[in-house]
Amino acid sequence: MKKVIMALCASLALTSSVLAQQNQSVTLGLEELIPGGDTHWKYVPKNVYGVQWWGNKCIFPTDDDVSAINPETGKKNKLFTLEEINKALSDKNLEKLHHFYYITFPFAEKKIVIIPLAKQYVAYDFGTKTITQIITPKENAENIDFCAANYSLVYTKGNNLYLATSDGKDTAITNETKEGIVCGKSVHRDEFGITKGTFWSPKGNLLAFYRMDESMVTQYPLVDIDARIATAEPIRYPMAGMTSHKVAIGIYNPQTGKTVYLKTVDPTDRYFTNVSWSPDEKKIYVIELNRDQNHSQLIRYDAVTGEKEKVLYEETNSKYVEPLHPLAFLPWNENQFIYQSQKDGFNHLYLFDTEGKLIRQLTKGKWLVQSIDGFNRKKKSILITTTGLSPLQSNAAEVDLKGHVTYYGKAQNGVEHVKTSESGEYAIDTYSTPNIPNKIDLIKVSSHKDLNLFTAPNPYEGIEMPTIETGTIKAADGVTDLHYRLIKPANFDPNKKYPTIIYVYGGPHAQMIHNSWQYDVRGWDLYMAEKGYIMFTLDNRGSENRGFDFESCTFRHLGVEECKDQMKGVDFLKSLPFVDANRLGIHGWSFGGHMTVAMLLRHPGVFKAGVAGGPVIDWKYYEVMYGERYMDTPQTNPEGYKECDLKNLAGNLKDHLLIIHDYNDKTCVPQHTFSFLKACIEARTYPDFFTYPGHDHNVMGRDRVHLHEKITRYFEDYLK
Amino acid sequence: MKKVIMALCASLALTSSVLAQQNQSVTLGLEELIPGGDTHWKYVPKNVYGVQWWGNKCIFPTDDDVSAINPETGKKNKLFTLEEINKALSDKNLEKLHHFYYITFPFAEKKIVIIPLAKQYVAYDFGTKTITQIITPKENAENIDFCAANYSLVYTKGNNLYLATSDGKDTAITNETKEGIVCGKSVHRDEFGITKGTFWSPKGNLLAFYRMDESMVTQYPLVDIDARIATAEPIRYPMAGMTSHKVAIGIYNPQTGKTVYLKTVDPTDRYFTNVSWSPDEKKIYVIELNRDQNHSQLIRYDAVTGEKEKVLYEETNSKYVEPLHPLAFLPWNENQFIYQSQKDGFNHLYLFDTEGKLIRQLTKGKWLVQSIDGFNRKKKSILITTTGLSPLQSNAAEVDLKGHVTYYGKAQNGVEHVKTSESGEYAIDTYSTPNIPNKIDLIKVSSHKDLNLFTAPNPYEGIEMPTIETGTIKAADGVTDLHYRLIKPANFDPNKKYPTIIYVYGGPHAQMIHNSWQYDVRGWDLYMAEKGYIMFTLDNRGSENRGFDFESCTFRHLGVEECKDQMKGVDFLKSLPFVDANRLGIHGWSFGGHMTVAMLLRHPGVFKAGVAGGPVIDWKYYEVMYGERYMDTPQTNPEGYKECDLKNLAGNLKDHLLIIHDYNDKTCVPQHTFSFLKACIEARTYPDFFTYPGHDHNVMGRDRVHLHEKITRYFEDYLK
Repeated sequence: MKKVIMALCASLALTSSVLAQQNQSVTLGLEELIPGGDTHWKYVPKNVYGVQWWGNKCIFPTDDDVSAINPETGKKNKLFTLEEINKALSDKNLEKLHHFYYITFPFAEKKIVIIPLAKQYVAYDFGTKTITQIITPKENAENIDFCAANYSLVYTKGNNLYLATSDGKDTAITNETKEGIVCGKSVHRDEFGITKGTFWSPKGNLLAFYRMDESMVTQYPLVDIDARIATAEPIRYPMAGMTSHKVAIGIYNPQTGKTVYLKTVDPTDRYFTNVSWSPDEKKIYVIELNRDQNHSQLIRYDAVTGEKEKVLYEETNSKYVEPLHPLAFLPWNENQFIYQSQKDGFNHLYLFDTEGKLIRQLTKGKWLVQSIDGFNRKKKSILITTTGLSPLQSNAAEVDLKGHVTYYGKAQNGVEHVKTSESGEYAIDTYSTPNIPNKIDLIKVSSHKDLNLFTAPNPYEGIEMPTIETGTIKAADGVTDLHYRLIKPANFDPNKKYPTIIYVYGGPHAQMIHNSWQYDVRGWDLYMAEKGYIMFTLDNRGSENRGFDFESCTFRHLGVEECKDQMKGVDFLKSLPFVDANRLGIHGWSFGGHMTVAMLLRHPGVFKAGVAGGPVIDWKYYEVMYGERYMDTPQTNPEGYKECDLKNLAGNLKDHLLIIHDYNDKTCVPQHTFSFLKACIEARTYPDFFTYPGHDHNVMGRDRVHLHEKITRYFEDYLK
Repeated sequence: MKKVIMALCASLALTSSVLAQQNQSVTLGLEELIPGGDTHWKYVPKNVYGVQWWGNKCIFPTDDDVSAINPETGKKNKLFTLEEINKALSDKNLEKLHHFYYITFPFAEKKIVIIPLAKQYVAYDFGTKTITQIITPKENAENIDFCAANYSLVYTKGNNLYLATSDGKDTAITNETKEGIVCGKSVHRDEFGITKGTFWSPKGNLLAFYRMDESMVTQYPLVDIDARIATAEPIRYPMAGMTSHKVAIGIYNPQTGKTVYLKTVDPTDRYFTNVSWSPDEKKIYVIELNRDQNHSQLIRYDAVTGEKEKVLYEETNSKYVEPLHPLAFLPWNENQFIYQSQKDGFNHLYLFDTEGKLIRQLTKGKWLVQSIDGFNRKKKSILITTTGLSPLQSNAAEVDLKGHVTYYGKAQNGVEHVKTSESGEYAIDTYSTPNIPNKIDLIKVSSHKDLNLFTAPNPYEGIEMPTIETGTIKAADGVTDLHYRLIKPANFDPNKKYPTIIYVYGGPHAQMIHNSWQYDVRGWDLYMAEKGYIMFTLDNRGSENRGFDFESCTFRHLGVEECKDQMKGVDFLKSLPFVDANRLGIHGWSFGGHMTVAMLLRHPGVFKAGVAGGPVIDWKYYEVMYGERYMDTPQTNPEGYKECDLKNLAGNLKDHLLIIHDYNDKTCVPQHTFSFLKACIEARTYPDFFTYPGHDHNVMGRDRVHLHEKITRYFEDYLK
């Protein structure tokens, strides 16, 4: 179904298109195409949840039972059924299990499956068909972190951390009572790769956890309008340049019930990231970062005393250092670990010993390592996922200690996510390509031999869908290739002129276009294409997966270079004979909301209409961790903050602009948009505005359909 | 310029039109027509500020000097000049006076003028040309209440009340420190005729003041987005059916510095209104009202001890009693006072003695007394303003103790505001009619002899303006006459079809149409008429000046009867050949915002577009005093609250609806609109929304022009 289209101008190299016209004239509505829509599930590629490793056997669940597959022979062996599990649960008066999505098999040698129920964690022995352990946290427990090694789980309730064990005990690890002290939760607003607040040691003998004091952070006054009388719901939100929170790392010993805190430097204006345990549980490694985010230190602490032992490695950068990955210790040598850094311009692997000596850079090149997936102990190789085959892809590779990389995955023109077996000899490769909705293959890494476990049908089978093309144009620097995606209506007529909408994100840590199913197209883009619009997206400089220079050219003036690149996209669109340059629209959310407003204000008259969702308007209202990385502080970069404050451009607004900002947005607080509206009112310009009360940074769930109908109507009003 | 137009249907009796086409084709913009616009002042009829009585002499200021006019002879006598005043002020190092707008002449016998400066109150003796008294309150004093009798003033700062005297003393009358205790300010949210919180006794020996405890009232979380980090600005807002504040009345004695509080019943759920002093300062009269607002009591208290002496008069009503006027004692008999009540269906005067004996009803008829303006001691007559000549008018009348009413004003086809001289023999009559922008006449009441002091020129002289007509149609009850105003473009062509917009208010205590200058037309109506719209306004049942039955037919289901009447207006518009029934719009603010939303939801498809400002959506979010008068409580009238809660009709929205709700609206809190948006989102209907950050219940000042441009664009988008 691929077709190659002639290049339309010098800077353009269209590569492929998928889903050419088919035969049925069904059109899909927002209920079908938008997450949250009543029938959206029908059009999401099917998947099998719970496929995983049990040692070196592949677990494959169906609706009714769970089997183990021998990856060498492909032989399937049924382990247990849902009925058996539910009988055992019922015998213990426990709630029913409905599916196998979240079960785990932590013990390669034991016939034990861990079943997380709504109120309990249960261990089921499928050899003896009996429940062997039940752990019951308090009701409404959050941030549950189960440790198989000791059959315990820690969880938070309110702002304290608790330990529940299978003997029925429930112990408070922290007893904080002061508002603003938060234990056991993710800190630093989930930046620096932080996603959780508890870290079990490898054998389960100790627990590291975050304790954050945010009592000194100014509260932002959000409002709950569902209460009988609207109620203040303040959140602690550290804004760029303002007082930030302080973090500590505790080491809790379940045997003694005692907690030791790491004896770090003063935590004021300091980030403690990527907590890593030594395999022997004696040491804790933390990557620490100054508030400027231009100097990181890998520091080793004694896990028993909390004493600081050594700075193993330091990294500085005139722009920023951004540690995102914990250490990965070599399974065959506990004195060596892999450190990830983009200091050579791309995220690569570096082998260190535990005294901080760099042994060697393991990977190198103008591509980046995205994840470490596992190790092959026998071959002493590392299984990773990289962009080595294309910056639009994630592909599974094996790299040896000399840096030799072999791609072993099944979708070398697509996007893969792998889970590797205990030995590292086998991998479960879940992947899609522009034409393959979803496949799961079982692979022998050494031979690339595979067994298909699952192939999702095309959810749009028989439906005449829009066509999707990708290609590259040059960035505003004249040199860099930027990838775009172009969507045409199914009944596309090259002699017609179509209204055209740019969907933009444009910020760091995101890439809109991948060589995954349908090139990552969004449901709304398909919907609009069905309604007769050309849809266009360009990943500008500053976006993800292209290396540090590409990302950081935006440093200290976020949005400026990005707009220049997007204007190259506009030039490209204007060069296309079927694009009606008088009916251009633009839409984006969050950073893309900023981009939408910025494009309308920096280039008035180019677009007839824009819809900006949850936009950053003024970086001084954004939070410290993300904001200061790219913008420094309002005190140290006043010119940059001024240049990027869209309030200062409010008088330029002449096109139709609808801003949608959710009323309870905790990420990009409503002050951004309200202050922009005020600036426009003062400048006598006329944005439109809408809000979704109760919604956070994105409109999720059923209301997401409403949102997209709202956005659609705006373009239908002003572009058609 | 009047022209009578043929009745177009049975229920219609058009009466007049003003401002027929003239010659110049200048059109006025929003800057000219909207208050806050740069050149709006040019189009407001000119006036003379500071015209008043000095005993029986009429004070007439110009820009440069102040004269006294003998009303009998018309002889003018210059009293002083601005230059003289400013010299005297300068000699005392006081700030300069710029105009005579706010000067007063409290002493008939003395050559003293009181000059309120920004920081001082000054008494100037224009006989000796010297400043005789200076009173200096604290900086940023508010609610200043000057007492000429004792050369003192009381004022509030924060929530406490202070007394400043001309000897330079500044005394705290209250010393409250608890948040939520408010002294010396207006209470009960300015309902029941309450406009202030301090009441000097006639000779200035005592001061009555309100003390309100609102600490038990739930706070509504408004937000200030101008702060570096948005800041909560909670207000105490008692919502219908919820806990309300408690009020006490203190009597402060400046001689002793002591305060006695009136020994009232438990102030929980009770209103203390219309504080009145006996002429001898020994008694205080308060009209008290239960929370249900259906039982009022006039109670006399001893002003020295605070003891309750007697309930003089009680009134009950199955709907509501609404005392709005303090007692007026007869100057010739300190034992008799006039009480105002609408118990016979219209507000009329009742003569009582101080033991509570009704002597007689003084006025009667299907019209109402709007104000008591003065007394003629010699003739023992009362000077009042009434709707006796027309419910669209206010006309000055003299009534004797037998109830004989004589209209003595100069504009018996217009709207008059009079100030009467000390003796009651003379009046300053400031008036307008549909054709007279503004005139000030000096009248001898007995002979109706007059002297014109000022005549404002027509501010639209030479400009071709829209035509304005008024008339009546029948209400939905088939019986009641309702007044309407219809505005046609200047170049009106009866063969064309015009888009037509209803401007609606519709709530109690307001009337949109008067026989005043241009029938009270709004600048925006003129602007839209200039742009080619027919503009229409109808005062439905429930509005002001038509008596209790007319107003209270809406009881317990506000908005329902009102909508029925407005639909009669729609029927009328549809009967007009030049109205394009397919392009009807509707706009209103506050109660009119409620009406706009209600009309669109109760009658979908009638209008193409509506713009609702600051709407009440659900009366349970409105305040206790106003809301419960008309709706009772959510607990006692659940059906009424349900019927009038527009959230329950959110699914009916099919026309274009823009809701504008100011972000800092303290009268109709934003919860109304935000909860409505949420209801629409859930019902998958699509209102539009805008907000004016920092603005209160109305968008005032310069931004008001922006507001009206915003409203205009909406109608231009969807009606044209």
